[in-house]
This record gives sequence, C-alpha cells and structure tokens, in this order.
Amino acid sequence: MEKNWDVIIVGGGPAGLAAAIYCGRALRKTLVLEKKVFGGQIIFADIIENYPGFSEPIVPADLMEQMSKQCERFGVTLENDEALRLHREGDLWRVDVYQDTITARAIIYAAGSAHRFLGVSNEQELLGRGVSVCATCDAPFFQDRRVAVLGGGDTALSEALYLAKFASEVSLIHRRDQFRAEKILQQRVFKNEKITIVWDSEVLGFKGSQKLEALEIRNKKSGHTEFKAFDGAFLAIGTIPNTGLIKNMINLDENGYVETDISLRTSVQGLFVAGEVIKGNRRQVAISVGMGVQSALSCEEYLASLE
Amino acid sequence: MEKNWDVIIVGGGPAGLAAAIYCGRALRKTLVLEKKVFGGQIIFADIIENYPGFSEPIVPADLMEQMSKQCERFGVTLENDEALRLHREGDLWRVDVYQDTITARAIIYAAGSAHRFLGVSNEQELLGRGVSVCATCDAPFFQDRRVAVLGGGDTALSEALYLAKFASEVSLIHRRDQFRAEKILQQRVFKNEKITIVWDSEVLGFKGSQKLEALEIRNKKSGHTEFKAFDGAFLAIGTIPNTGLIKNMINLDENGYVETDISLRTSVQGLFVAGEVIKGNRRQVAISVGMGVQSALSCEEYLASLE
Repeated sequence: MEKNWDVIIVGGGPAGLAAAIYCGRALRKTLVLEKKVFGGQIIFADIIENYPGFSEPIVPADLMEQMSKQCERFGVTLENDEALRLHREGDLWRVDVYQDTITARAIIYAAGSAHRFLGVSNEQELLGRGVSVCATCDAPFFQDRRVAVLGGGDTALSEALYLAKFASEVSLIHRRDQFRAEKILQQRVFKNEKITIVWDSEVLGFKGSQKLEALEIRNKKSGHTEFKAFDGAFLAIGTIPNTGLIKNMINLDENGYVETDISLRTSVQGLFVAGEVIKGNRRQVAISVGMGVQSALSCEEYLASLE
Repeated sequence: MEKNWDVIIVGGGPAGLAAAIYCGRALRKTLVLEKKVFGGQIIFADIIENYPGFSEPIVPADLMEQMSKQCERFGVTLENDEALRLHREGDLWRVDVYQDTITARAIIYAAGSAHRFLGVSNEQELLGRGVSVCATCDAPFFQDRRVAVLGGGDTALSEALYLAKFASEVSLIHRRDQFRAEKILQQRVFKNEKITIVWDSEVLGFKGSQKLEALEIRNKKSGHTEFKAFDGAFLAIGTIPNTGLIKNMINLDENGYVETDISLRTSVQGLFVAGEVIKGNRRQVAISVGMGVQSALSCEEYLASLE
C-alpha cells in the first residue's frame, strides 16, 4: 500500500464515502479504510425509499456501490484494512493498519456506530427481512402489520409510538417490570390502544425462513416460553459509537459520541468527524452523507491553509 | 388551498424537499411553499457529479425533479406561493401567503440564500455555461482552461487558490486596489504563479452565445475597456441569506445567518431550520439535503411530544 496520503478517511460507510468523493475531487490523495464492507451497515437493509433523489425505492447495496464507484472516479483509493491506532506526530498523522504504518496530513473520522444485538438465533439472517434496527426507516413498510419493539429506554418507547401510526398492533417487549424511558413517553405508551406491553420477557430467537414469522419469547418470572407471530421486530436496545481510536484525544459525551458543531472540526488540528460518531446525528444515510461532505470541505479548508 | 397543516416548509430547494420527504413519510400533513421554482438555485447549474449516489454526472434539474416526485409519493403538497409573514399564536403557527392565511403546528424554515450578482449583460443567460457561483462545484470542469474570479474577500481568494489547482490561468478581478481578505490568503495568492491580479477593474458584461467566451473589463482608474477571453468566470461577491421572515424571532449572526447546533432546532418552539440559511453550511446540495432530513426528524420528535 502507498504510505503517504493527504487525507485518510476512517470508515467506508455513507459518511466516509461522501467525504472521499469531495476530497478526491479536490485533488487530494485520499485513502478510505474500511474494516468490514464498503457501504456500511445500510447494505444489510432491504430497500430504501427515503434517500433524496430517487423517486422509486432502491436497493441500499446498489446505492452504496454507486458511491464507491463515484469515489474511484475521482481517484480515491478504497482499502479493506483496519485503522488500529491514530496519533499525531508533528504536522503528520500516523495510522497503524494491520501490516504497516501510513501517514496523512488530515484525518476524517467516520467509523460509525454499532447497533447492539441480542445475539440470538436468526437475528442476523433476518435483518432487513423483518428484523430492523430503525423505525424511522422501516415503519412505513409495516402498514397494518403486527410488530414487536424490543427495549425499554427512550428509543424503544419512541419507536413503539411511531410504529403505532402504521402497524395494526405493537408489542413492546421488555426484560424488566418497568421502563427506564422518560415518564412522559411512558404515559403516551400506556395510553396508546395499539401498544401492548410484554413485561419481564426476553426474546430467545427469531423464526422464519425468507422473512420473519415469529419470536420465541420467554417470561423470566414464570419461565414460560412461547412462539408469537410477528411481521416485524425492531431492536431498540442501544447503539455504541466506534470512537475507541479517538477517545483519548477529544471530548466525548457520556455515551462515547463526539460533541461538535456544524463545521465538524474537532479540538485537534487536522482531525475532522462525520456520520454516526457524532452526538445528535439521527442516523439516516442522507444525514451521514451531508456530514461527510461538510467535513471534507472543512478538511479542504484546513489543507489549503497549510500551503 | 387546504388551510391547516402539521408542517409547513418554507422553501422548495434541496433542504426543503428532503425535509418534506421525511415529514410526509412520517404521515404528517405537509406543505412546501416555494416562491420561485421547485428544486432551488441548483437547477441553473449545468451538471452535477458530486451528489453522492450517482457514479456518473447527472442533470441537476432531473435530480431535483426526482426529489419533488419523492415528496408527492409520500403525500406532500407542493405549492408555488410565497410565505409573506410567519407568526406564532398560542400553539399554532400562522403563515400569510398571497391570498390567504394558513396554519401549521411546526415550521421548517429552508428559504436558502441568494448569490449576489453583478446585474450585467448575459450574466444570467450564461449561468451554468461558464459563469459559476461555486468553485467547489465547478472547478474540476475547468482543467487547463482560463478562468476569472470576481471579488476581493476571503471567498474570492480561496476560490482563486482552489481553481489554480485545475485551471491553466486564474485572473482575480477586483474593483479596488487592495483586498479585504485575510492577510494569509493574500500572501498565498500573491505567491501563486498561476494567479494574476487585475486591480481597480469592474466587469461590464459577459460575452458568448452557447457558452462564455469573454469578459468586458473596465479599468476604473484609466477608463480603458477591453474584452478578455475566458472559459470560466466565478462570481464571489457574496451571498445573502433569505432570513427576513424570522429575523425578529431568533438570533442571527452579523450577516443574517441562523446560528444553530447539530439538532437544527431554534430557540423558538416548533421552528426548525435547514440548508443555506444556516451559518457555516458550505453550500452543497448534499449538505442541504442532510440538514433537511435532520431538521425533519427533530421536527417529528417535537410533534410527537405534543401528542
């Protein structure tokens, strides 16, 4: 691999690829490091109908393939490798990858966030086939269907309320006998006739071949286990930002997200952020893409200032 | 026109349409008001190759037509009318349009900003045909060509430096005999061998039929006028945010832009912002689209909290 770059972008999801298009087009020698699969988590979704610019639904993997090609059109290098350590030495960033150490004048950190999963049978297999991690994205596909929401925090209750606008029945399945969500959300959930609360229960697995058919649910107090039919199941048990590599350089909030302003600069020279590592980002492809572009232009301003 | 809405979006450019897709998809009764043409200023650009998701160049008017259709697919109403006055009365927003007063529970203000133009002959006719208002967008189309940049502030000098990476020659044409741009930018411009400075000069008009061929330039001290050949001319004489309707409600910066954080909420209940009215937005379609989505989701959170 080439050793010296103008910009190294950590993360090849929507934010990283969008940033790369702009860095490449600004004639910066640009490398995108992605440890899993270019395109990011969105490629596991079934279809996407809310990315502005496409009046008909599209396949997420196709959209992200277009972005990868767009990067390559502007001379960007996409590498399947993992940034293991980042540190600044003088005016240069050094990035340790698996077999090498490479350098850059600026870093755009767009490593995203991970959804928490239950780790039960068929969960990954049915992701995008009934199992979902995003009510905003997928609720409209469940018009008049039966759905479950798993969790007991603000996100779970908000998603249950949102899904109740579309679905015929919403079961809110929670491990404990009370919610940790704010009281006002609890009141709204208790009042909503479409929402049934399933207390003290854990999901042991998902059932279905091509698409989700049922959840295996165990009552933790009685020990009773049953299969209950659902068309959709929304996991709302939390997210974890992938900010391990920068946590010692900049201020993160209590959950590990980066606090920044519209510019997407950080307190560290030559370090920019984009996408789901940012606090308050509402986790949509278009939002991450817009942030990628904004971050790349802040980065370009910085690089121009060095010349 | 229907009188009562959940959300009225002021402005039908990329930010407004992106917001509308999300509001419509969240089953909110959504109206977009646009006083000129749906799609916004970008439709006057020739082609666009940096909107993430399209590996080949696209026609901006086509992209924006897709966004308009996407809005309609989710039940959004698009109206060619102008918001003349906004005010909050109790829990409701009242919006005066030409022939009526309509109401909404929330407003997404995405009225954009206007480029300053010289107001000289052929300027509008050749916009997107050699005359440009965005170096970031159009510089790569002028590889090895001769371009002019008009202006003397930070934007003009930054754009001249950026264009010098692509063009064979850059003439920086300024009305006065000194720049108001920051000193460090001036030093870089003076050092750059590709950049020639044309002091004390004003552009009287643009020449060209299908595309720009020359600029008519008058030296204000000598009175001498000449036609000089250029392939591109970049206007960098400023922008004006369209924030007149909200200037008495919220804090604006000294140039009239809205200061806000990642959430895109404002200090006024039920008033959200998106796009080029926001301070620090670097004026790209993808950035405005991302902000439109973010703003719509903050708005949805607000509307859900009222229920």
